[in-house]
Amino acid sequence: MTVVYNRVALIGLGLIASSMAHAMRQAGLVGSIVGHAKSAETRAAALELFCDEVFETAAEAVKGADLVVLCVPVGAMGTIAAEISAHLALGATVTDVGSVKRAVVDAVQPYIPEGVHFIPGHPLAGTEYSGPRSGFATLFKNRWWLLTPLEGADEAATQRLRGLLEAIGANVDVMDIEHHDLVLAVVSHTPHLIAYTMVGVADHMRRVSEQEVIKYSASGFRDFTRIAASDPTMWRDVFLTNKDAVLDILGRFAEELFVLQRAIRMGDGEHLHAYFTRTRAIRRGIIEAGQDTSAPDFGRTAPAAGGGGEGKE
Amino acid sequence: MTVVYNRVALIGLGLIASSMAHAMRQAGLVGSIVGHAKSAETRAAALELFCDEVFETAAEAVKGADLVVLCVPVGAMGTIAAEISAHLALGATVTDVGSVKRAVVDAVQPYIPEGVHFIPGHPLAGTEYSGPRSGFATLFKNRWWLLTPLEGADEAATQRLRGLLEAIGANVDVMDIEHHDLVLAVVSHTPHLIAYTMVGVADHMRRVSEQEVIKYSASGFRDFTRIAASDPTMWRDVFLTNKDAVLDILGRFAEELFVLQRAIRMGDGEHLHAYFTRTRAIRRGIIEAGQDTSAPDFGRTAPAAGGGGEGKE
Repeated sequence: MTVVYNRVALIGLGLIASSMAHAMRQAGLVGSIVGHAKSAETRAAALELFCDEVFETAAEAVKGADLVVLCVPVGAMGTIAAEISAHLALGATVTDVGSVKRAVVDAVQPYIPEGVHFIPGHPLAGTEYSGPRSGFATLFKNRWWLLTPLEGADEAATQRLRGLLEAIGANVDVMDIEHHDLVLAVVSHTPHLIAYTMVGVADHMRRVSEQEVIKYSASGFRDFTRIAASDPTMWRDVFLTNKDAVLDILGRFAEELFVLQRAIRMGDGEHLHAYFTRTRAIRRGIIEAGQDTSAPDFGRTAPAAGGGGEGKE
Repeated sequence: MTVVYNRVALIGLGLIASSMAHAMRQAGLVGSIVGHAKSAETRAAALELFCDEVFETAAEAVKGADLVVLCVPVGAMGTIAAEISAHLALGATVTDVGSVKRAVVDAVQPYIPEGVHFIPGHPLAGTEYSGPRSGFATLFKNRWWLLTPLEGADEAATQRLRGLLEAIGANVDVMDIEHHDLVLAVVSHTPHLIAYTMVGVADHMRRVSEQEVIKYSASGFRDFTRIAASDPTMWRDVFLTNKDAVLDILGRFAEELFVLQRAIRMGDGEHLHAYFTRTRAIRRGIIEAGQDTSAPDFGRTAPAAGGGGEGKE
């Protein structure tokens, strides 16, 4: 592989930044990787694992970088942009990995100087873990990375970024900003809120103990808990900044749920059966498109014998 | 292992029955395994894969069996019980694997003759697949199998059944019938309904294409689609027969969701952050209890390169 960027500055050093660093380094795509995180502990871990140099401020970190990747929670993007604005190198590309795009563009764009290219992005990849030790080089393999370039964006800069992302395994699509935020509200943001809610309901029940919820979770509930274990700060910011689209989809969700609830109350088995049959087809489509494994139960292996029998220790 | 039952009759030959058969046979726990299913195709598959003999009627299948396992959807249990009633052997044990227990007990118990032991049961194990070819011997390994024996149940018969279930890898718990139905409404039935609903919402959206939903599903949505790919008949019956508990939990779910929805609308980040932090702890408990893998993203492997780039063909 040829070097695509000489110096990459990662601002925020969690799951996405650390995975990018591992992937870029393994493929020999970049000269050096530098970084900034607020926490000294995070900086130390990044220096140990994947950064050539770390800095106490974002402003120092971006100096001389030809690619700057903003990997902080969506709500922190504006502050970071203001901080780095005067220190960005002429001709540099700034991108971000935020799950919401309109709010990030509005927060960051005003701070991008003439001669610097801002190309907003969003990798649809992650796990329920966070922090600099959670990254791995294959996180983006065959995952979508959406770019939402602004009007008049520099074509060469966009192609260069796209080349890097494809070289670390991602499939790149270009999308309109508003459409991105709506699509993500459907496939990601609302499902996360619903998972959080269901886990919260179980947590609040008095007649069913937490111990029971945990013991018997394999019957469906545990899949919700994985999603509901995602980073609280990241998700708070997503819901606050993609408010309109999320409220729109939540409204539709509540309507559909009430229709099914009514069918249960009225004993309308035909309605339920027809609904449950249609949803099966979507699963088939996802597997055919290579976006999930067809192995039963995600191919999870049975947990170690005895563990389930012991409960919490 | 010693033989626990001489002749086991499996009524209904889907995922649970086929997994039981494979597990019992591998461990040498039973003399012979016979079965009945409505469909000739299913009977042929079962005969090929795990049954010594199959029968066109449930009545023939149960003759001479010392263990009868009812593995049909909850809504079909009563009809089957009426059919087999006069053909059950004296001293035989009848159990079932239905996900709802009050409705099964009410439907089956009246048909259990004097001298036959009815011990209702429910294995908390499954995958999103169904049918006689979907079973495998380790399905119950370290999974809970709940028994809800009736008042005055024969202790020796209960212990014998328990011995079989433990020998195929399950952890057995005894539970009160009504409590079972409430616990399952929380950890299984309501999560399934919610997953079906979310997939339905995505299916109905006009502004987001099905193609987009499928392509970008890795961002959270695809976990819901696995659950929403479960057997429609089985789940229709669950909701119709555990109506009260499911409606109770759905009511609580809607309340909680509205509170979070309001927090989003009002921009109450503190409320959201606190809520999302609490739900993380439950996930930790499930992993510590050995009821799920701690591997990121369930340990799913990345799908084959290229698949995601092609979409549906």
